[in-house]
Amino acid sequence: MSTPSSRTLLAAAPLLAAATLASADPLPSWEDGFSKKSIVEFVERISREDSADYIAPRERIAVFDNDGTLWAEQPIYFQLAFALDRVKILAPVHPEWRTTAPFKDALSGNTQALLASDQKGLLQVIAASHSGITTEDFNTIVGSWLATAKHPRFERPYTELAYQPMLELLDYLRSQSFKTFIVSGGGVEFMRVFAEQVYGIPPEQVIGSSTATRFVAVGTNGKPALIKEPQVDFINDGPGKPSGINRFLGRRPIFAVGNSDGDLQMLQWTAGGAGPRFVALLHHTDTDREYAYDRYSQVGKLDKALDEAERQHWLIIDMKHDWRSIFGD
Amino acid sequence: MSTPSSRTLLAAAPLLAAATLASADPLPSWEDGFSKKSIVEFVERISREDSADYIAPRERIAVFDNDGTLWAEQPIYFQLAFALDRVKILAPVHPEWRTTAPFKDALSGNTQALLASDQKGLLQVIAASHSGITTEDFNTIVGSWLATAKHPRFERPYTELAYQPMLELLDYLRSQSFKTFIVSGGGVEFMRVFAEQVYGIPPEQVIGSSTATRFVAVGTNGKPALIKEPQVDFINDGPGKPSGINRFLGRRPIFAVGNSDGDLQMLQWTAGGAGPRFVALLHHTDTDREYAYDRYSQVGKLDKALDEAERQHWLIIDMKHDWRSIFGD
Repeated sequence: MSTPSSRTLLAAAPLLAAATLASADPLPSWEDGFSKKSIVEFVERISREDSADYIAPRERIAVFDNDGTLWAEQPIYFQLAFALDRVKILAPVHPEWRTTAPFKDALSGNTQALLASDQKGLLQVIAASHSGITTEDFNTIVGSWLATAKHPRFERPYTELAYQPMLELLDYLRSQSFKTFIVSGGGVEFMRVFAEQVYGIPPEQVIGSSTATRFVAVGTNGKPALIKEPQVDFINDGPGKPSGINRFLGRRPIFAVGNSDGDLQMLQWTAGGAGPRFVALLHHTDTDREYAYDRYSQVGKLDKALDEAERQHWLIIDMKHDWRSIFGD
Repeated sequence: MSTPSSRTLLAAAPLLAAATLASADPLPSWEDGFSKKSIVEFVERISREDSADYIAPRERIAVFDNDGTLWAEQPIYFQLAFALDRVKILAPVHPEWRTTAPFKDALSGNTQALLASDQKGLLQVIAASHSGITTEDFNTIVGSWLATAKHPRFERPYTELAYQPMLELLDYLRSQSFKTFIVSGGGVEFMRVFAEQVYGIPPEQVIGSSTATRFVAVGTNGKPALIKEPQVDFINDGPGKPSGINRFLGRRPIFAVGNSDGDLQMLQWTAGGAGPRFVALLHHTDTDREYAYDRYSQVGKLDKALDEAERQHWLIIDMKHDWRSIFGD
């Protein structure tokens, strides 16, 4: 996705050199303050071939958490909203769900109980609502849901709740030869349905949690198929994030942004590499335009990582003061 | 890695258009026969924008098995040769290995017994020889081994036993906007040490089997580290290959090459997609220059996949007749 401003520029002057383009503001939705300055200075420093801090393009790996970092995550993770809608659709063939936790909580909309169950209830709801179908059918179902479901407060499709300043940052990094990855606790197959269109990040650069799939040589349509199974096989959260990065990506990132304690180890892993590194936390501080939450939130809790960011002098992006706009038009 | 011929061309005429380059033979180590013609015709067909079979560059995903497809695998998988050497180095601190299978077989060089154990012994030897160290130390150890170990028959470093025709094919596909991936039963971290240098395939495009890693915020050098654990967490072989492709890549390939029964499901999964697909098996038929083996081999057994290739009219590349040279100079 190009931002409107870079798209206009490119259309008007397709032969402009990258250097000239860079002199236009690549981050117009960011206030001209410390956060923006830190980002641009880092990128320029590692891009100059005559700099001691120069990093070759192939090592310019940037990783972003998704929920609460690239798009909103309140009042509940958007994938959970999808799972709850899906559980309602599947409920008629599962009468037992009306009386058993966590499904009765899912059906009655008691998300507080679900979130309080410390992942266990959440995972059961996700597993039941995401399995027993082929990967291709799942993609179709997620696509239909994203096209019709709306956020309860903003009354817009969830995909419009990607943060405009982050879309600009992704574009800016890619214009400087970075390869951008999502590294999220969310389900990898859920995110891949929209990541390319919304963030410009192709499926093969999305790392997430996953459930098992089972290959059948002859599916119901006579073709080979992958059936989604309920067993979770990888949780890409907390200490799982560096493991996921190692498994999927095989290089250590030089640039990482997160927003919660689930990102702590990814940020530590990134910061711990040799040479220049850029590590940032997005702090949700804007009740009026989005939400304000940190240490006591059930969704996107930011506590230990905030302490560590202060200790290590990682950049803390203050949504309210650093961002001119939150969502695109 | 460019092939010598394309490197020379590029150096001599950096501004030649892609179309002009393509008119030079991109596959000089391939005989001018059915196999080469099939490859070139497929690539040209899906690349022409006015063709009904046109495939957009972002969907041009090509997957290659590694052992026996991109490099040799006889008389034993090269990663197993590494593991055996490593077990010998570690043996003094594991006196119990001298009397317990599979380690006593590993130490005495009884590879027949190891291979006959139907993966179990192999996995134990790999687990023991690949764990208990950081991912970074492991990379260093593999790099040192590759720099010094030599193949028993060819007396060359293992990395020189990549197939020249396959290096040309990888280059050719990339010149036509394909993104090339390795999808192998081999260990993902082992392959990543050499895949970029030998095949031009970056770490993030290598999919393989993996063992667990454990994150520690403060490692022995005071920095965060990932410790390699002995537990296998994913076997990317047989029906695991389509699952691995789904998990890591998230798109269905349009081009796949394998050489053994472990590749059968990857080839079926690729062939089963809508639109044009290219699926091929490399058949080892050349005792003089390499090896000849198929249905009865303990390494790289090719039996069911050969039957399926004949039934489905997949391309069967005949090493002896289709390749002018096997290894580079």
